Amino acid sequence: MARKASLSGFPEWLPAERVVEQHVLDTLRRTFELHGFANIETRAVETRGQLLRKGEIDKEVYGLSRLAAENEDKHDPNALALHFDLTVPFARYVVENAGHLAFPFRRYQMQKVWRGERPQDGRFREFTQADIDVVGEGTLAFSYDVELALTIADALSALPIGDFRLRVNNRKLAEGFYRGLGLEDPDAVLRAIDKLEKIGNEAVATILIDEVGATREQADAALALAAIRTLDTSFVEQVRALGVEHELLDTGLDELFQVIDAASKRAPGKVMADLSIARGLDYYTGTVYETVLVGHESLGSICSGGRYESLASKGKKNYPGVGLSIGVTRLVSRILAEELVSAARTVPSVVYVTLADDDSWHQAQDVAASLRGRGIACEVASSAEKFGKQIKFADRRGIPFVWFTQEDGTHEVKDIRTGEQITADPSSWTPPAEDLYNTVN
Amino acid sequence: MARKASLSGFPEWLPAERVVEQHVLDTLRRTFELHGFANIETRAVETRGQLLRKGEIDKEVYGLSRLAAENEDKHDPNALALHFDLTVPFARYVVENAGHLAFPFRRYQMQKVWRGERPQDGRFREFTQADIDVVGEGTLAFSYDVELALTIADALSALPIGDFRLRVNNRKLAEGFYRGLGLEDPDAVLRAIDKLEKIGNEAVATILIDEVGATREQADAALALAAIRTLDTSFVEQVRALGVEHELLDTGLDELFQVIDAASKRAPGKVMADLSIARGLDYYTGTVYETVLVGHESLGSICSGGRYESLASKGKKNYPGVGLSIGVTRLVSRILAEELVSAARTVPSVVYVTLADDDSWHQAQDVAASLRGRGIACEVASSAEKFGKQIKFADRRGIPFVWFTQEDGTHEVKDIRTGEQITADPSSWTPPAEDLYNTVN
Repeated sequence: MARKASLSGFPEWLPAERVVEQHVLDTLRRTFELHGFANIETRAVETRGQLLRKGEIDKEVYGLSRLAAENEDKHDPNALALHFDLTVPFARYVVENAGHLAFPFRRYQMQKVWRGERPQDGRFREFTQADIDVVGEGTLAFSYDVELALTIADALSALPIGDFRLRVNNRKLAEGFYRGLGLEDPDAVLRAIDKLEKIGNEAVATILIDEVGATREQADAALALAAIRTLDTSFVEQVRALGVEHELLDTGLDELFQVIDAASKRAPGKVMADLSIARGLDYYTGTVYETVLVGHESLGSICSGGRYESLASKGKKNYPGVGLSIGVTRLVSRILAEELVSAARTVPSVVYVTLADDDSWHQAQDVAASLRGRGIACEVASSAEKFGKQIKFADRRGIPFVWFTQEDGTHEVKDIRTGEQITADPSSWTPPAEDLYNTVN
Repeated sequence: MARKASLSGFPEWLPAERVVEQHVLDTLRRTFELHGFANIETRAVETRGQLLRKGEIDKEVYGLSRLAAENEDKHDPNALALHFDLTVPFARYVVENAGHLAFPFRRYQMQKVWRGERPQDGRFREFTQADIDVVGEGTLAFSYDVELALTIADALSALPIGDFRLRVNNRKLAEGFYRGLGLEDPDAVLRAIDKLEKIGNEAVATILIDEVGATREQADAALALAAIRTLDTSFVEQVRALGVEHELLDTGLDELFQVIDAASKRAPGKVMADLSIARGLDYYTGTVYETVLVGHESLGSICSGGRYESLASKGKKNYPGVGLSIGVTRLVSRILAEELVSAARTVPSVVYVTLADDDSWHQAQDVAASLRGRGIACEVASSAEKFGKQIKFADRRGIPFVWFTQEDGTHEVKDIRTGEQITADPSSWTPPAEDLYNTVN
């Protein structure tokens, strides 16, 4: 990535880079649909009241105003603003369309979101998220928490991103453990545990003792819990060995067991119980997911989510949900920066149909129509320049084949990578399967 | 469409409606790529200076401001605003990335745009456009004007929208004709001619005489020109018969001839020379396109565009272009309102894997993994309710097949439309091709 975005935080890709992004989006779409998720899109805007509903919001929201309008009231809750994630709009969509949806409703949504944050590596002001959620009416079976982990493991495995680790924790497990220990402000404990990676065990212990009111033993036990990471269900034994008892802890252990038990069989090595994960546990109510790219941990989580006991509600109706969100732009920018894959060519065309003279344009269009009718992407030269120049035109774009029509009406096609030129019939010639589409590799 | 958007002018589709929109977008993508167009996306925002560059703008622009920021200056040209079309951003993208692009550069772009206009039938505040353009560096062969008409005819023919008419005119033809007549303000004549459909011949003649300074004969000749509409190249003869001579008229006639000559052969009945088209002729410099859906003329143009002698420029570099823009949301909303097509089901799943008891969840996941591995979308029941209830779950979503695993490990699959139930093997059973994807028909 030598190029710099002309507007900081608003990345734009060159055509060959966009092919990589499209590949990522197509792969996610395919996987989500194989798992039965239906697609929706929501509008880019919400009312400010809707976006700021949860009070204090740490996302920087972009407000909208018609330039032609008089000065508008920034604090008007009905004024519009750009959504900063896909969860808030989805929750609204569910409530508004509940009568038209079949619950549990499983949907995926891949759209841009905007945040007025200061851009930095892996952080953008405009970026694409790919979300999957299952939402129930009244209740939602826990098996969906398991299924979502498996779906995401499937989706990420299909992407050209190398190894990843989906790390799972559970709010009930953590809260039950802290309560069992006698710590009555689990949120405060979680906020301290969340700093582990940054400031280390001893500093976290100090916060727990000085600010949260823990004893040294309680602090050590909380840190011992956070040290547990297993790729199988042995975390249960390790937690039990810490000797803490609480009903909520039992529920949480059982839930996390179900996720890890299924995942260790179906996606071995990909999904891990990680009891240090605290981020998100303050607003999720059960399972919580985070994902790191192995070798790219500094990128932060590329896919996060969890279970909400109430994703949305209206009157007496409550809609619990569980979901995950993939940071597509963050992933794609890393794939491009590290050149993990690249596009085979800069254009979709697999054949460039040359012109012997300007009068042969119609004949060339006949060839092109015949190829296109059989699903072969091609373009026709715009004028009868020297063949060398026409071949160079194709070559610059990475188009592998050039087509020639002779004066006698016979055709030849040349692979400009090998120089091999053969007689061909526009109604039957087919390129090798690996050349047909502009793939990434 | 019984539902109303909860925010006027910001349509949102239900999952089955989104399938129709996806079908339209996929079809356009496929066609554009068969014709060699590469995809790009540009950021949703531009600087206000960029958007308002052409001075007076008739589009209602949405400005952006960070809600957390102090009051910002509405007139700061570096402040951000949402793009109102894809042409302005594309022109900027071309100039910024010229060194990385191969010209002539052919691209398609399908994105949302925003306009703060008053919403009405077929007019939205947020809507999707699908644009194709070819842009050259310095020069751009006229054959691209022909090619674009053919590409669009191909694309629209592939959509479930019934019959359409791509109407083509040419700025040089009109301007040359008016100048040949002795009318020296062609823009004023065009503005009058643009009112033809609304106010009729006599009222337009009055404007031409009273406001543009035409004689009765000049006005009649201008109206005679505007009356010419042909599906073949006979318009040339009809224009010639009006007896007007001008060099620019000759050029324009030749250009329009090339478009209609090729189109009448390759897309017979779809493309028409229509010399009444005036809208757009004031900013396009040659070919101009408009498209109506036959039987839905009130919808207005669903696809418009034309040739720019200068789509963009920087220093001494000039980038001519020719392109068209399809109003995807306008089309989709009409397809949905008229129920021209609909989705086969509301979810991608073709199979619903039932549970005999809760312990069989893992076994059911094995079945699902096997089906998915062969490209068959499916979902697994979340709990072992009565079979009748599980079948109803599938039926409500339009999922055609339900899968049963017997206690002895054998499998059966039932087509719930016909009731037929057969023995099946998860590693080889395949649904009929027409059921595999959630198609529209």
